[in-house]
Amino acid sequence: MKIVWSPDHLGQSGHVELGAGVIEPGYECPERLAYVLDRWRERGLGEELAPTAQSLDVARRIHAPDYVDFLAEAWNLWTAAGYSGPALPMVWPTHNLRDDLKPKAIRALLGYYSFDGGSSFVAGTWTAVASSYAVALTAADLVAGGERVAFSGCRPPGHHAGRRTAGGYCYLNNAACAAERLRERGASRVAVLDLDFHHGNGTQEIFWRRSDVLFVSLHGDPATEYPFFLGTAEETGAGEGEGFNLNLPMPAGSAFDVWGESLEVACRKIAATGVDALVVSLGLDTFEGDPISHFRLKREDYPRVGARLAALGVPTVFVLEGGYAVADIGVNAVGVLEGFAGV
Amino acid sequence: MKIVWSPDHLGQSGHVELGAGVIEPGYECPERLAYVLDRWRERGLGEELAPTAQSLDVARRIHAPDYVDFLAEAWNLWTAAGYSGPALPMVWPTHNLRDDLKPKAIRALLGYYSFDGGSSFVAGTWTAVASSYAVALTAADLVAGGERVAFSGCRPPGHHAGRRTAGGYCYLNNAACAAERLRERGASRVAVLDLDFHHGNGTQEIFWRRSDVLFVSLHGDPATEYPFFLGTAEETGAGEGEGFNLNLPMPAGSAFDVWGESLEVACRKIAATGVDALVVSLGLDTFEGDPISHFRLKREDYPRVGARLAALGVPTVFVLEGGYAVADIGVNAVGVLEGFAGV
Repeated sequence: MKIVWSPDHLGQSGHVELGAGVIEPGYECPERLAYVLDRWRERGLGEELAPTAQSLDVARRIHAPDYVDFLAEAWNLWTAAGYSGPALPMVWPTHNLRDDLKPKAIRALLGYYSFDGGSSFVAGTWTAVASSYAVALTAADLVAGGERVAFSGCRPPGHHAGRRTAGGYCYLNNAACAAERLRERGASRVAVLDLDFHHGNGTQEIFWRRSDVLFVSLHGDPATEYPFFLGTAEETGAGEGEGFNLNLPMPAGSAFDVWGESLEVACRKIAATGVDALVVSLGLDTFEGDPISHFRLKREDYPRVGARLAALGVPTVFVLEGGYAVADIGVNAVGVLEGFAGV
Repeated sequence: MKIVWSPDHLGQSGHVELGAGVIEPGYECPERLAYVLDRWRERGLGEELAPTAQSLDVARRIHAPDYVDFLAEAWNLWTAAGYSGPALPMVWPTHNLRDDLKPKAIRALLGYYSFDGGSSFVAGTWTAVASSYAVALTAADLVAGGERVAFSGCRPPGHHAGRRTAGGYCYLNNAACAAERLRERGASRVAVLDLDFHHGNGTQEIFWRRSDVLFVSLHGDPATEYPFFLGTAEETGAGEGEGFNLNLPMPAGSAFDVWGESLEVACRKIAATGVDALVVSLGLDTFEGDPISHFRLKREDYPRVGARLAALGVPTVFVLEGGYAVADIGVNAVGVLEGFAGV
């Protein structure tokens, strides 16, 4: 198995997030990937590759082109306006009479292009975001080129990023871009399976009207769990995409007995739909020790997850998403991969 | 002239706001009304009245009833969830695939019912909000009962509050509620003239499809000025309300030579439309010394504003909105009123 990662992820350091009444250091931190790499090496899983150079073409199809431009410019606009410190949005066009009025001021653009205060910008954010995107596309290229599986060590993560919204630590939707690349390289249909504790609202939005990408998500009930405003079971897609979106929300506190059943439902849906490739949005915040999530998977559950995914028999790109129990994220991520590889 | 105010406004103290990358004390502070009262007394403008008891019926027509219930419950829900300190939202359903999924968690409800982090909740917020609403309705009752003019010393302000959104220090839309009360008491058509530096996005939304309430606003260009996502000249209303919304945005730096021309346009529109009563959303943040706004009106301009409004010859309810140059807000607010009264 190969892992793709880039030291450019370190650009995303020292950022903050708007929590419940406080601005605090981001739970999504550089140590997360360091633990994954440590464990990868400890277990001798395989070769480490740097991402290949990637144009932003795929990002500009998956996202609104002006949104991609904004991500690249945000920090410069912020500092040019005289602000210092991490850039956070402060006002959003929520429930607004119109959706199309795009302001010029950076403090407003940040809200125009986001849905929360979880995706702040620091000097190295765009470098990290662009590298994370290139990592996912490189892994997709490996699989499109014949590898059975590849792992994308993405930082920052991507699954909350919508067509024109950052949020929840995410900027470009790496998993969605990987799926698009697989399509581009010949897969007639791709599944994105989102195993993060938090609903992949961005990915769902991006593929909502498409039948060539099946989106399936296991996650905490949006009535009580972030990101809250999307992710119920009755959301099944629209237009040509009707029937190609499957949400499997579960109550807080769910352990593997419940979660594993949802995984089985998800895998059967993927098998029944018939796909040429699979992208797994691999969040490890389903772990019982996660500080901001509320499922109760145990260390020994993760290899079982990997084995079940391997049984689908489909070329697979793993994309790292959330997971904040930093010391455990490495063991659990690698646990999934070892289960997949049958080690 | 009579002023209505309530000491319950002091409940809104110690609150905070999400600024540009920081959480800071609210610019909207209790001293604002204290300065207005000091100046009112100094100039001997007239009687001070407490608000009469008011049911929430008008608020429940102007706003979504569940939003009104939420405002009353927010602080209790926040503390019951174990949080302390001012309650701020953290995630919003911005550009979301669906608009109808209402979560249960308080940290999500805060975002569901707001468009920024400017309207935090503390223990006394609801008491203050309810009193501010009662103040506006009491002033409307005075005018409906035959007074030529009345002043509502409202704190917190209201003009940013939409049908189901708090924001910009606002919770219930006092001016919109006053207009509704005037309609209820027999005015066939009412104008709301918003003179705050910031666009009255909430009031516009509330009356967008109504022809019985004309909304006219003078404000900073939304391309560069808060609240940013609404307020251009081409927004003229919809359905039956087409033609009953007039926005007069002006560039930052505008002084009375420009602003006064817009006021003239506004007054002519009101006169041409024909109304039985006028509600003035009186923001004083058009003042050159305002710390967060960018027009350049001078102290001597405010009596001229009042005189022009009086010349409309329509029974008038003034409702206090923004204005953050605290020591000047009293002089300037009372300057408008004295100009109106021809003192």
